Amino acid sequence: MSDLPSKVHIHEEGPREGFQIEKGPIATARKIELIDALSETGLEKIQVASFVSPKAVPGWVDADEVVKGFKRKPGINYHVLWLNEKGLQRALMHQKEGAGLDMFGSISTTASETFMRKNTNRGYDDNVRIQGNQIKIYQENNIPVVRASIMTAFGCNYEGPVEVATVIKRLAEILALAEEMGCAIEYVSLADTMGWANPASVKRVVGAVREKWPELGINLHLHDTRGLGIANAYAGMQMGVTEFDSAVAGLGGCPFAALKGAAGNVCTEDLAFLCEEMGIETGIDVDKLVEVAQLAEDIVGHPLAGSLMHAGTLTAARAAAKAA
Amino acid sequence: MSDLPSKVHIHEEGPREGFQIEKGPIATARKIELIDALSETGLEKIQVASFVSPKAVPGWVDADEVVKGFKRKPGINYHVLWLNEKGLQRALMHQKEGAGLDMFGSISTTASETFMRKNTNRGYDDNVRIQGNQIKIYQENNIPVVRASIMTAFGCNYEGPVEVATVIKRLAEILALAEEMGCAIEYVSLADTMGWANPASVKRVVGAVREKWPELGINLHLHDTRGLGIANAYAGMQMGVTEFDSAVAGLGGCPFAALKGAAGNVCTEDLAFLCEEMGIETGIDVDKLVEVAQLAEDIVGHPLAGSLMHAGTLTAARAAAKAA
Repeated sequence: MSDLPSKVHIHEEGPREGFQIEKGPIATARKIELIDALSETGLEKIQVASFVSPKAVPGWVDADEVVKGFKRKPGINYHVLWLNEKGLQRALMHQKEGAGLDMFGSISTTASETFMRKNTNRGYDDNVRIQGNQIKIYQENNIPVVRASIMTAFGCNYEGPVEVATVIKRLAEILALAEEMGCAIEYVSLADTMGWANPASVKRVVGAVREKWPELGINLHLHDTRGLGIANAYAGMQMGVTEFDSAVAGLGGCPFAALKGAAGNVCTEDLAFLCEEMGIETGIDVDKLVEVAQLAEDIVGHPLAGSLMHAGTLTAARAAAKAA
Repeated sequence: MSDLPSKVHIHEEGPREGFQIEKGPIATARKIELIDALSETGLEKIQVASFVSPKAVPGWVDADEVVKGFKRKPGINYHVLWLNEKGLQRALMHQKEGAGLDMFGSISTTASETFMRKNTNRGYDDNVRIQGNQIKIYQENNIPVVRASIMTAFGCNYEGPVEVATVIKRLAEILALAEEMGCAIEYVSLADTMGWANPASVKRVVGAVREKWPELGINLHLHDTRGLGIANAYAGMQMGVTEFDSAVAGLGGCPFAALKGAAGNVCTEDLAFLCEEMGIETGIDVDKLVEVAQLAEDIVGHPLAGSLMHAGTLTAARAAAKAA
């Protein structure tokens, strides 16, 4: 299809998203096992851990051990999440010890001030000031600030549907700050934090962002909360989006759907399958990734939300049909 | 979005698909309970039972009782499936007794002769002859033959990917027969019997069928085997398709994914949610349908594959946001 990109980049967030939400303690060795298996699938970029307070996120109490322990495969960008300076300092400490992490700075806002207040106890004015402080810290540490993200970009449980104009206004605010401070932002990440997006709203928001900042890349961070995740990704691709966050096996969902399998982040292997079946290159060996998704299910010890991992790809059937 | 239809018609097949595949015996009263609940959701067309051999499909041993027992809600088309003359005669018997079923005739083919042979022990020549006999029987019973369907229209586990030209050729064959015999076919149903479709192939096949027979409606019978069902439906809508088959809660899946929830037919409430969120009218009260999906889960006694039924719609959050 001529309106689709020829290549899509998938950013794997399964380990970070998954292990922060799972209830049971998961052995450090098994976390490392998952990361090492993901490294063998052709993924280019993997978020391996979260440097957050172990009190707030007990699942990442062993983040230091995980970061030290996984095998670095050449060519893959491994990175970690931090939410404050303390977390960043932990990442920097690992870098000094030769961790070889992909370090980049990100500034962020939300399209809902109510959500921002509930989540971080800030208003927009406070947030701009705090993002400015963040940029200073990145600059002091020679970390390039390349990413601007906006949460609840498609809707918010507190404020309801989000106006496209709000997304533009809030992004403009932090992008102006970044410019003022001399950062070369490369791309904007639009996050459907609460599962409000649909293909039409994806097209509206992506279209408006692209029109306003044609020079910036766009990343979509989609959730599959209400079953529209893959359709939303497809709509994004139709708008030329080539960067997606996702999680193997759909790791990282909400605990309320524990039995059925948590429907959280868009599932990496389903997304890669969507691309590859349409002739869009991802660099991923989808069959291998299905095996890793099954491993993830074994590690967390309950069913996960991915579809392909339960049904299998079409590779075997294609090969058998060709041979017949 | 100007490229999408303003209204979509959803044909509910959950009862028929679901109860034919579930292992345990399900009480007739509970089957009727599900149908009656579906009747209250705004659905226009519900397939309530299958008149097939109880030996082949033990789950429908009580089809006669179900058809007698459910409450007819005015304005809804209730219909039943039959696969041969014996089944049709059972449906006709109920009609004579005042069942008020929506009786229409359908002719069918497949895009894979191997599948046809394995499924029905026929080749294409045999099939045309048999479809002709079917038409005769319909005509003798004053049943309008309005539908032509093609299975494995997007791929087949035995033959692999299906060429668009094959779909056109096989449809042309049975449509010519229908014309010859004086039937006014109204629409073509394209079935992704084995879960091979992707949004690009949906667009290719739908586009080719529309170009060849612009006067015919198109129905998509999609499966969600590999997680692309909703994206495929969206691609169909982008091509102007306004008729979809689906199953409440995703009933009717394959038993291999029993624990996770069977990923079979596209899930009705997820599909209706996709439409309504984009401003496409379905006539369905999605919140009510979510409750029916939860009832379906209770009736079958294991988790089902629907997403929205586990996460909930956005109605409550929207109302709360408005009130705040």
